[in-house]
Amino acid sequence: MSVLIVGSTALDSIKTPRRACAKLLGGSASHASVAASFFAPVKMVGIVGSDFPTRYIALYRRHGIDLAGLQRVEGRTFHWSGEYEVNMNNRRTLTTELGVFEQFRPALPPTHQTTPYVLLANIAPALQHHVLDQMRRRRFVVADTMDLWLRIARADLLRLLRRVDALVLNDSEARDLAGTDNLFTAAARIRRMGPRYVVIKKGEHGAVLSCPDSLFVCPAYPLARVTDPTGAGDSFAGGLVGYLASVKGPVERHLRRAMVYGSAVASFCCEGFGLSRTDRITRADIDARVAELERLARF
Amino acid sequence: MSVLIVGSTALDSIKTPRRACAKLLGGSASHASVAASFFAPVKMVGIVGSDFPTRYIALYRRHGIDLAGLQRVEGRTFHWSGEYEVNMNNRRTLTTELGVFEQFRPALPPTHQTTPYVLLANIAPALQHHVLDQMRRRRFVVADTMDLWLRIARADLLRLLRRVDALVLNDSEARDLAGTDNLFTAAARIRRMGPRYVVIKKGEHGAVLSCPDSLFVCPAYPLARVTDPTGAGDSFAGGLVGYLASVKGPVERHLRRAMVYGSAVASFCCEGFGLSRTDRITRADIDARVAELERLARF
Repeated sequence: MSVLIVGSTALDSIKTPRRACAKLLGGSASHASVAASFFAPVKMVGIVGSDFPTRYIALYRRHGIDLAGLQRVEGRTFHWSGEYEVNMNNRRTLTTELGVFEQFRPALPPTHQTTPYVLLANIAPALQHHVLDQMRRRRFVVADTMDLWLRIARADLLRLLRRVDALVLNDSEARDLAGTDNLFTAAARIRRMGPRYVVIKKGEHGAVLSCPDSLFVCPAYPLARVTDPTGAGDSFAGGLVGYLASVKGPVERHLRRAMVYGSAVASFCCEGFGLSRTDRITRADIDARVAELERLARF
Repeated sequence: MSVLIVGSTALDSIKTPRRACAKLLGGSASHASVAASFFAPVKMVGIVGSDFPTRYIALYRRHGIDLAGLQRVEGRTFHWSGEYEVNMNNRRTLTTELGVFEQFRPALPPTHQTTPYVLLANIAPALQHHVLDQMRRRRFVVADTMDLWLRIARADLLRLLRRVDALVLNDSEARDLAGTDNLFTAAARIRRMGPRYVVIKKGEHGAVLSCPDSLFVCPAYPLARVTDPTGAGDSFAGGLVGYLASVKGPVERHLRRAMVYGSAVASFCCEGFGLSRTDRITRADIDARVAELERLARF
């Protein structure tokens, strides 16, 4: 089955202690869509400006991503620049130029309005609502978010939680949203705010899935070197939803494996700047890392 | 088979955001010995002063711990006091009064010198060396350590690494010892310094085992509330070595499960001040948590 992914499409300029790269393909929808494309047909919805390089359109196409929902308008593409500290865990935003993103109102072509799996990748909760308002049928909706929306659009986000099946967020966001330091308590509290499933991302420490009757602790793939973690969380969410769309039967039966697949794709994302590494992998590469994750989690 | 555990035996005064408790039974040998006692006969070596409460001797005895190597001398028992911050992750030492611990030279009774499994719990590396010097035969030696020894006794510690089969240390210590932020790289580097196996403890994020040919990612037991984490690392190491001593066959075959057992015991330790919770559990309670860990790690 296919996946609808709505989020940001951006150009990222990234500085790490080792290197700086300008105007890489970035944005939550870009990372999530490429990640999901290894598993299922993807319909991406986003907006880019007239400066958006054709090679990035070619990249989306190479991964079979349906671009009917990608708006191309006059003006500059959303541009984000940031810098990582030595340990690659702390990120500092240097500049955010919204450009055409400022006028983004995700409009779903009729063919998109019945997509069974939906990933509301990280964008303003109001836009995530706007997408759901246009859906005429759907099977499973996952929303991702970020600390910014917890600060400036908390009410919108809280309303969104009652409209989604699963929420994906990172550990500090979960602590903030639930008002507790304990992640397991936080996950349970967030489930009571709406979503049946809560997935807390912990970066190099893996992720946790909280279901109504169970918990799952998902390992991260062990990387000896992280080149650029930008987009790893988006890749994780994209891989997760893509995998879910690729299998049959009740979602809950597949969620654990979906997270492991998400982890595997995210690990590739970290190994190159922007999408450079993910762009060059195959489903077989991902399967090999999932097999490794199985071996290293077994006891 | 039996386990020899050498380390500190102390009285701990602990303050958390919720409560303060004075003169609890503490010390690395106390925590590790009680943890190991659920799996195998334990011979503990340590030193206490004339102020050491008889109820703590009774506690050791209740867990069948052989006290032939526990020196009882005139003076005050080692007393540590510390305080935890709200998130229970940051600990601040308030006072350290060594007392009789200052004169501690672990002397092994002849019956102890051939104990197959040895845990050099956290004490000065020079004392850990002194224990190994007295051993006449042994099967498997695990050493634990702490940041203090990395700072003030690094050379002794580096020499010790060439004499032990496994080193247990926490993530920040591993980064410091190996000189890298990446934990998997750190583990591999530390193995090259001597120990065949390196176990890196990550608190609530579980632990990692680095073997010559494989990695294992061990989940932590999910606790909704941490009352007092003091001694959790010692309990983990004690449970690990105790479990190893309780099973037959090559150690490497059992190391993963040993870590899971260590995690389970450590989780109980965190649920009460000092040893108060661990003192009241049974092997069946531990087995139940191991079964839960199996369920939450499966995919």
